Amino acid sequence: MHIERHFHGGATVRDVVIGMSDGLTVPFALAAGLSGAIAQSHLVITAGLAEVAAGSIAMGLGGYLAARGEAEHYASELDRERREIKDLREREEDEVFEVFEVYGLTRAQVMPIIEAFRERPEQWADFMMRFELGLEKPEQGRALKSALVIAGSYVVGGIFPLVPYFLVGEAQRALSFSAGATLVALGVFGWAKARFTGTPRMWSAVQTVLVGGAAAAAAFALARAFS
Amino acid sequence: MHIERHFHGGATVRDVVIGMSDGLTVPFALAAGLSGAIAQSHLVITAGLAEVAAGSIAMGLGGYLAARGEAEHYASELDRERREIKDLREREEDEVFEVFEVYGLTRAQVMPIIEAFRERPEQWADFMMRFELGLEKPEQGRALKSALVIAGSYVVGGIFPLVPYFLVGEAQRALSFSAGATLVALGVFGWAKARFTGTPRMWSAVQTVLVGGAAAAAAFALARAFS
Repeated sequence: MHIERHFHGGATVRDVVIGMSDGLTVPFALAAGLSGAIAQSHLVITAGLAEVAAGSIAMGLGGYLAARGEAEHYASELDRERREIKDLREREEDEVFEVFEVYGLTRAQVMPIIEAFRERPEQWADFMMRFELGLEKPEQGRALKSALVIAGSYVVGGIFPLVPYFLVGEAQRALSFSAGATLVALGVFGWAKARFTGTPRMWSAVQTVLVGGAAAAAAFALARAFS
Repeated sequence: MHIERHFHGGATVRDVVIGMSDGLTVPFALAAGLSGAIAQSHLVITAGLAEVAAGSIAMGLGGYLAARGEAEHYASELDRERREIKDLREREEDEVFEVFEVYGLTRAQVMPIIEAFRERPEQWADFMMRFELGLEKPEQGRALKSALVIAGSYVVGGIFPLVPYFLVGEAQRALSFSAGATLVALGVFGWAKARFTGTPRMWSAVQTVLVGGAAAAAAFALARAFS
């Protein structure tokens, strides 16, 4: 859900973290909220599963289309850079200089690089993509895998807090089991994901529990007020 | 919800798009799903509002903490780069070379840049942050504003599909108004956001409607199956 640029770890781990962050939080909070307003676990399960379906599709399909859009955007910008290098060489050379100007370099200092690029139009285009436009080359076929991993992690995270409602018919009683288990799971998840985000582990665990707890408390208060 | 790197437009516009993408989709889909299983609009409203509370807090507070974590991570990495430039100058010079090696440049071609950096350790560190580590300088005080804009947009987007349920007591009848109005709103939103994502406008509108429609249909089918 959040833009995690400072992420150490593979793309798949990142997708699991993205899907599970929301999956463990929102369906849990919704179920907790409804337990404050509805007596039967049955209705909480219905709403919880509907949320898991909606959330996983919104994240998975939405993410798939966004990634496809990014890949197309990258391809069209790369095309444009290549054309500019061919047809508007002088302007493109100025643009190389502008990239380095920010760092206090003079035209003379940048000149050897421009000269090298003249012989390597392909690498020049790659360079402009990253250094002028800030675009990273998207991994081929990444969109589908990423969408499935995010959606799957959301489903796994989202079903977990609902399990007690399947076992205990009275919603308020099921809530205590669900809240206990989910807050522990959020803590463990926060602890584990700290390895990839660079946040101190204990603080990451506390944060993750706090977000889940706050979301559940707000949902509970609102559902009770309106029921 | 999705990582939108290829985004043209201000940070605030981006936050509105992020919050509203999910806000217009998930609470709508949940309400639609429950309308297939529950007769009274009243319960749909309770669940919908609980979802809006949970989702906006998960996105807002979660986003706030993630942004704070990124800012801290940036500051600590910048510290490290500065220390390395001071204490491990030779290794750091090798690293500048490695950044350019990928683009086919020789050590001799990169040398003028390394020489210029020797006199400008501050700009050298900024360069390493962006081009070695791929980290952008986070805007000061951005986290709080970003969190509020995302959460607020989620609330606005999420309340919209619930309005018909306040006005029409029978859930299935309220659903037809909600679905009609929300699918139109999703289309308009998809059309409008295309200005910033680079996707063709019509295709962006169709995509946004499709994601919302698919999420609602899945939630509806699941809720009906389990009720």
